[in-house]
Amino acid sequence: MTGSLAVIGLGPGDQRYLTAEAEAALSAAQALYGYAPYLDRVPPRAGQSRHASDNREERARADAALRHAAQGGRVAVVSGGDPGVFAMAAAVCEAIETGPESWRALDVTVIPGITAMLAVAARIGAPLGHDFCALSLSDNLKPWALIEQRLDAAAGAGFVIALYNPVSRARPWQFGAAVERLRRHLPPATPVVFGRCVARADEHVSVTTLDAADAEKADMATLVIVGSRETRVIARPGRTALVYTPRAAAEVSA
Amino acid sequence: MTGSLAVIGLGPGDQRYLTAEAEAALSAAQALYGYAPYLDRVPPRAGQSRHASDNREERARADAALRHAAQGGRVAVVSGGDPGVFAMAAAVCEAIETGPESWRALDVTVIPGITAMLAVAARIGAPLGHDFCALSLSDNLKPWALIEQRLDAAAGAGFVIALYNPVSRARPWQFGAAVERLRRHLPPATPVVFGRCVARADEHVSVTTLDAADAEKADMATLVIVGSRETRVIARPGRTALVYTPRAAAEVSA
Repeated sequence: MTGSLAVIGLGPGDQRYLTAEAEAALSAAQALYGYAPYLDRVPPRAGQSRHASDNREERARADAALRHAAQGGRVAVVSGGDPGVFAMAAAVCEAIETGPESWRALDVTVIPGITAMLAVAARIGAPLGHDFCALSLSDNLKPWALIEQRLDAAAGAGFVIALYNPVSRARPWQFGAAVERLRRHLPPATPVVFGRCVARADEHVSVTTLDAADAEKADMATLVIVGSRETRVIARPGRTALVYTPRAAAEVSA
Repeated sequence: MTGSLAVIGLGPGDQRYLTAEAEAALSAAQALYGYAPYLDRVPPRAGQSRHASDNREERARADAALRHAAQGGRVAVVSGGDPGVFAMAAAVCEAIETGPESWRALDVTVIPGITAMLAVAARIGAPLGHDFCALSLSDNLKPWALIEQRLDAAAGAGFVIALYNPVSRARPWQFGAAVERLRRHLPPATPVVFGRCVARADEHVSVTTLDAADAEKADMATLVIVGSRETRVIARPGRTALVYTPRAAAEVSA
């Protein structure tokens, strides 16, 4: 008997963004592995074991889940958002590549979810309505110079930029440094969206400008979207503004 | 009475990627607007009118839906994938910005969906496991020189690149030209993933290399993911290969 491993995207926040496929995969699993707050979102099921671990232990969690699957279990790893975007699917692939050969025989599936940038963008209009990129500001696993190079390239070429992991307790200055870097390329009035805890009770989405962006609160639960030169804000009387990037782009920037 | 407009992401293909929130919004609508093949995916409901239009008519569809909502209707615009990614949400925002002032008073919500790049990535492992961008190859609404500038910037800075709208009947050469452009920056063995009709009966996902990529079939239903220098392929005996981009990136490219 060969086991299986499903890497499941829960989407952001509560159950409203769970897909039918993710729901089916959760109910089929004999064992769930995940970061504790993500596991807490999944209602308990009889006969299903739960294995919580800490945020930083992605590789150890992947190894443990794969060992369990290799013993014949139907195992699931749960991930917030989409498991393929700065989350568990890459850690599982790393473990499969470098682990015992038997792991390469396992039935592995990845089940996509709504990633944070899509949820935040939806809340405020369509800031990702044209070409965009997703960039993690964590320099735990890459040099800061590479992050700067990518900020320069993306802003210089007119991509809207979704910033994941803008700040953590161990990385207090990176977000401010990124904002400063982006000011070299983009006008002060460029719209910036802060989306915190989207689809949770304490959800907070706000719009500011690039020249004021570093004064805004960002934390580990925040996703930041920095517009391009084309991104626009529509003021609406009595309603929150809409932010969007038009489908057409006319200019080649310098 | 003020009407409402929901812009709803159906995800790719069949119902398996529909979220609970999208399902609820579909059932609450009195009128559905959309490109005919997307409307066809939504089961008919008694008392719900359906207004199909052609692919190219995004702005006219947005105008019609907003007019209907402004008359007090609960209107929904359906979109394949995520409505905020090269889809209807930006067209609706454009219409709101330039249309009658009454449209800015409407209750407008955007409901995210699984966009094609997330579904294709999930099928093959985790190619979007680190920094990536999404770029439309359609030069209907932007100059080709801008697309080339963005390809250069993204590949040069080490972003994985998801290419939307690689080919259409009216745009036969753009995908080949993009591949040729990317070869200036990336090694011939760079992994390239073609995902066609994901989550549909005729789904086909394949992996090739950048030097062979333009021989592969791409069409309007194809999403292409071009790896970075870091992207890896794991061969698996008796199973399809896994493609992933590691969480760590060590180098700053030239």
